[in-house]
Amino acid sequence: MEQLDISPKTARLLISCPDKPGIVAGVSQFLFQSGANILDASQHSTDPAEGLFFMRMELEIQEQPGFQQAFQERVATPLQMEWQFSYSHHRKRMAILVSAYDHCMLDLLWRWRSGELQVDIPLVISNHNSLENDCKQLGIPFYYLPVTAATKEEQEAAIVQLLREHQVDFMVLARYMQILSPQFVSLYPHRIINIHHSFLPAFAGARPYQHAYNRGVKLIGATAHYVTDELDEGPIIEQDVARVTHKHAVADLVMLGRDIERHVLTRAVKAHIDDRVMVIGNKTIVF
Amino acid sequence: MEQLDISPKTARLLISCPDKPGIVAGVSQFLFQSGANILDASQHSTDPAEGLFFMRMELEIQEQPGFQQAFQERVATPLQMEWQFSYSHHRKRMAILVSAYDHCMLDLLWRWRSGELQVDIPLVISNHNSLENDCKQLGIPFYYLPVTAATKEEQEAAIVQLLREHQVDFMVLARYMQILSPQFVSLYPHRIINIHHSFLPAFAGARPYQHAYNRGVKLIGATAHYVTDELDEGPIIEQDVARVTHKHAVADLVMLGRDIERHVLTRAVKAHIDDRVMVIGNKTIVF
Amino acid sequence: MEQLDISPKTARLLISCPDKPGIVAGVSQFLFQSGANILDASQHSTDPAEGLFFMRMELEIQEQPGFQQAFQERVATPLQMEWQFSYSHHRKRMAILVSAYDHCMLDLLWRWRSGELQVDIPLVISNHNSLENDCKQLGIPFYYLPVTAATKEEQEAAIVQLLREHQVDFMVLARYMQILSPQFVSLYPHRIINIHHSFLPAFAGARPYQHAYNRGVKLIGATAHYVTDELDEGPIIEQDVARVTHKHAVADLVMLGRDIERHVLTRAVKAHIDDRVMVIGNKTIVF
Amino acid sequence: MEQLDISPKTARLLISCPDKPGIVAGVSQFLFQSGANILDASQHSTDPAEGLFFMRMELEIQEQPGFQQAFQERVATPLQMEWQFSYSHHRKRMAILVSAYDHCMLDLLWRWRSGELQVDIPLVISNHNSLENDCKQLGIPFYYLPVTAATKEEQEAAIVQLLREHQVDFMVLARYMQILSPQFVSLYPHRIINIHHSFLPAFAGARPYQHAYNRGVKLIGATAHYVTDELDEGPIIEQDVARVTHKHAVADLVMLGRDIERHVLTRAVKAHIDDRVMVIGNKTIVF
Repeated sequence: MEQLDISPKTARLLISCPDKPGIVAGVSQFLFQSGANILDASQHSTDPAEGLFFMRMELEIQEQPGFQQAFQERVATPLQMEWQFSYSHHRKRMAILVSAYDHCMLDLLWRWRSGELQVDIPLVISNHNSLENDCKQLGIPFYYLPVTAATKEEQEAAIVQLLREHQVDFMVLARYMQILSPQFVSLYPHRIINIHHSFLPAFAGARPYQHAYNRGVKLIGATAHYVTDELDEGPIIEQDVARVTHKHAVADLVMLGRDIERHVLTRAVKAHIDDRVMVIGNKTIVF
Repeated sequence: MEQLDISPKTARLLISCPDKPGIVAGVSQFLFQSGANILDASQHSTDPAEGLFFMRMELEIQEQPGFQQAFQERVATPLQMEWQFSYSHHRKRMAILVSAYDHCMLDLLWRWRSGELQVDIPLVISNHNSLENDCKQLGIPFYYLPVTAATKEEQEAAIVQLLREHQVDFMVLARYMQILSPQFVSLYPHRIINIHHSFLPAFAGARPYQHAYNRGVKLIGATAHYVTDELDEGPIIEQDVARVTHKHAVADLVMLGRDIERHVLTRAVKAHIDDRVMVIGNKTIVF
Repeated sequence: MEQLDISPKTARLLISCPDKPGIVAGVSQFLFQSGANILDASQHSTDPAEGLFFMRMELEIQEQPGFQQAFQERVATPLQMEWQFSYSHHRKRMAILVSAYDHCMLDLLWRWRSGELQVDIPLVISNHNSLENDCKQLGIPFYYLPVTAATKEEQEAAIVQLLREHQVDFMVLARYMQILSPQFVSLYPHRIINIHHSFLPAFAGARPYQHAYNRGVKLIGATAHYVTDELDEGPIIEQDVARVTHKHAVADLVMLGRDIERHVLTRAVKAHIDDRVMVIGNKTIVF
Repeated sequence: MEQLDISPKTARLLISCPDKPGIVAGVSQFLFQSGANILDASQHSTDPAEGLFFMRMELEIQEQPGFQQAFQERVATPLQMEWQFSYSHHRKRMAILVSAYDHCMLDLLWRWRSGELQVDIPLVISNHNSLENDCKQLGIPFYYLPVTAATKEEQEAAIVQLLREHQVDFMVLARYMQILSPQFVSLYPHRIINIHHSFLPAFAGARPYQHAYNRGVKLIGATAHYVTDELDEGPIIEQDVARVTHKHAVADLVMLGRDIERHVLTRAVKAHIDDRVMVIGNKTIVF
């Protein structure tokens, strides 16, 4: 029989429920009685018309049998609560899907190697083979799955197979230039993060830097969002911009944009890893 | 007979012409021979397909008869140049058109009072009378011209009349909530500056803060542009953004947006006053 | 006998105490039993060596007799808690001390007029008389108290007298160019907000823009802090910077700096008004 | 006999001289007669007390014998000019000196690999051996020269030897934790770029993140500067900051700081590579 590790652990509790008095009292009372210490807490109430309450807590807590069942019965059910509980030391498993541009993938891998991203990366999947060497040098399995119109469906099935084999929790499209099918997207709701190289909703679709150049904007941007069936329309997690001038040709925008893309994507991925993102309708709460 | 003031003056020279070798040499040689000293210069060449050259110079120069005619004959004509020359001490005359929101107008008036905006403000025109007192306290004539569907045409004619009487060089729409007719716009090409309360081209049209809220963007912005016949489609002079979160209701976006709007508008107006803006197609060069 | 207003009110509760499990549970349980709804909550624990816990809550609560006494007895005393409770509709009374520069004062007055600053401004005190008219036009009493080396002590006493008469809660030094005596400062601990025109600790003391110019920095900044006996050394509430280049003379830095100063000061004053600032040692927690 | 390549080249011309009328005319006239086209030009005049003129030009020009000698005789000598001329295709040779922190070095190598930095990197020198593998994978020679108090002088001589063998033009201290001797610095005036992990002049010296934490600043920064004999006092090339709060422990500041450090260093290195930096006294002009 395996012995329970009773050293204190850090855990995260996310909840959402109809807003009413007593939620914080109910949750914190239960946690106190369970020996948990609240290290940090953030909450958000939507406007009264919607009437929803969201909270994220970081806890210091010992692993204990029956904790989650008791929470369900004594707190969640009475308050009609949806919730999620996870220990911080249970590292999520993140897949990266990438095409030929390396900057977003490399930034993620670097931060993973440096310990900045507390995540496991069991595999990288690409429809090009140009980044295989970069992955191998860091010891990360690389799968080359080229896609044509004829093989798209079949290759998506192969991707799903790989994600399952590697028990992937969520995936990052680090400039993956293929549109995923609704079937695929439905398997990973709010668990596919894409980086779009514009300040959405401006310049959705293809070639945003060219369109930004044509319009003569004075800032270019990038947007990290969860993928939904509507292209470039999913819940936005993070955005940022950089200043440009008439001096910048399209190629300059592309180069400048690389830095914005990778920072925006990294911040979004970090927030997801740390269970800081909750989705409400087509919007996010980022605690 | 009036005596010519021969103390050194600061002047600005703007030129645009087909790009070819020798332009800087030709212009600077002429200026040197005219006793002018180049205090600052900026230039821009478009890509070879367009092949256009733009330059802005700040000069130290004595007023002298025949200078502009000589420049036309010896420099501008041979180089097929469009150009504009103005002394810095000839202050432009700026009209402000405003509705009920005061923040953009007040910011302009403050900076004018403090000497930050080197411009004359002969009048403010509004379709509301709520800001009359603010203008009067600063000694600026205020004209109240309410607009209804029935009186729109007639009031626009009244505005044109006022602008002419006051010899206005350019005007600023400091949150003026009326759409100007093409006839009006055509009288002041690239001389009407509007502030739109979004990061264009995102959220063009009405109620941009509401739309930004609905989309769940993480940044809101503002855009200053020259007015053209296409609503919110004119050449962009300046843009900026501010970070927002899920905590911000629409009213918060409106409040935060006020600061972005006034800074963006102020920077655009300053650039216009200092003859730093040149228009090429539907884009600007801001030196 | 005055009748108690039982309509729901918004209030803010700030607490600090030794960190231990059960604080949130204890506070929220008490609030729930008192009929209060927690609208928002933020908390912060210092590192274990210090072992302190800080929390700010926004509540919806009816005014009720005995509430504060009960909180003291049942929650604060057992947890060795320092705390502060205030209704949002009890507007703080803010004095502005100013010298000859108008930008910081005018920005505060504008935002007050527009409703952005939920505060009362019973008076402005200045050692110059140049801003009297601006205050009068907004209906704010202006006191001119010129200061010389000989009259400094006496005028400070006059200021204290005025602050008491007007029941001032806190004051803002909106570019007030006089150093306050330790006696004065000790009367208003963490209730005097100063704006220093540099990114502290760089360029403390006089003429920071000149020193920034001499050093050739590429960013200039401003710092809002609580005043303590150590000049420019008090707890920092807010800071920001703006980019500058070799083109900027000292006068340009001064002009650019005006915008940074007023934004930084405004944000600090807002945070103070909303009871978002807690002081720990010589540092602030800004919730 | 080698044949001259007469295809058009891009070149950069930097000049500084006493300010007087006719400089631009003289230079541009000479360039026009030499068949050079001015692609871009920036200039700066210091205030009249100093009376200095600086200019950077990008030219399209054919390689031609005698060009530089003619420029010296006909332009530079009459105008008492210091100047520097270089073809853009002559890539500078950059050495990187690094200790154990990898982020700055890796960022430079990445951008070099992607073509963003138009420079040759003949070698990396380190007093640790931990980054050898990263360099080897990119094909860059790595020299491990550990330093102790006893070997410091000898190892510096070894570094100089390596720099000479590899014909290094300038070097980057990418978090190199050794202080270079005045003798070493004097060999590479304004050709050693250091990144300091604070917003200088704040927190000069060791452990700036700890000091920033202790002071409770709301922004942390980084500074890239040329190395001089005065530690952390050389001419500043670039600076930037990031926002922090009371939530950030020292370790968080270190992590956040990594991003600022590498961006600031990269921008400074780019400016140096592109001959955009001129030094005047202890300050820089960055065109």
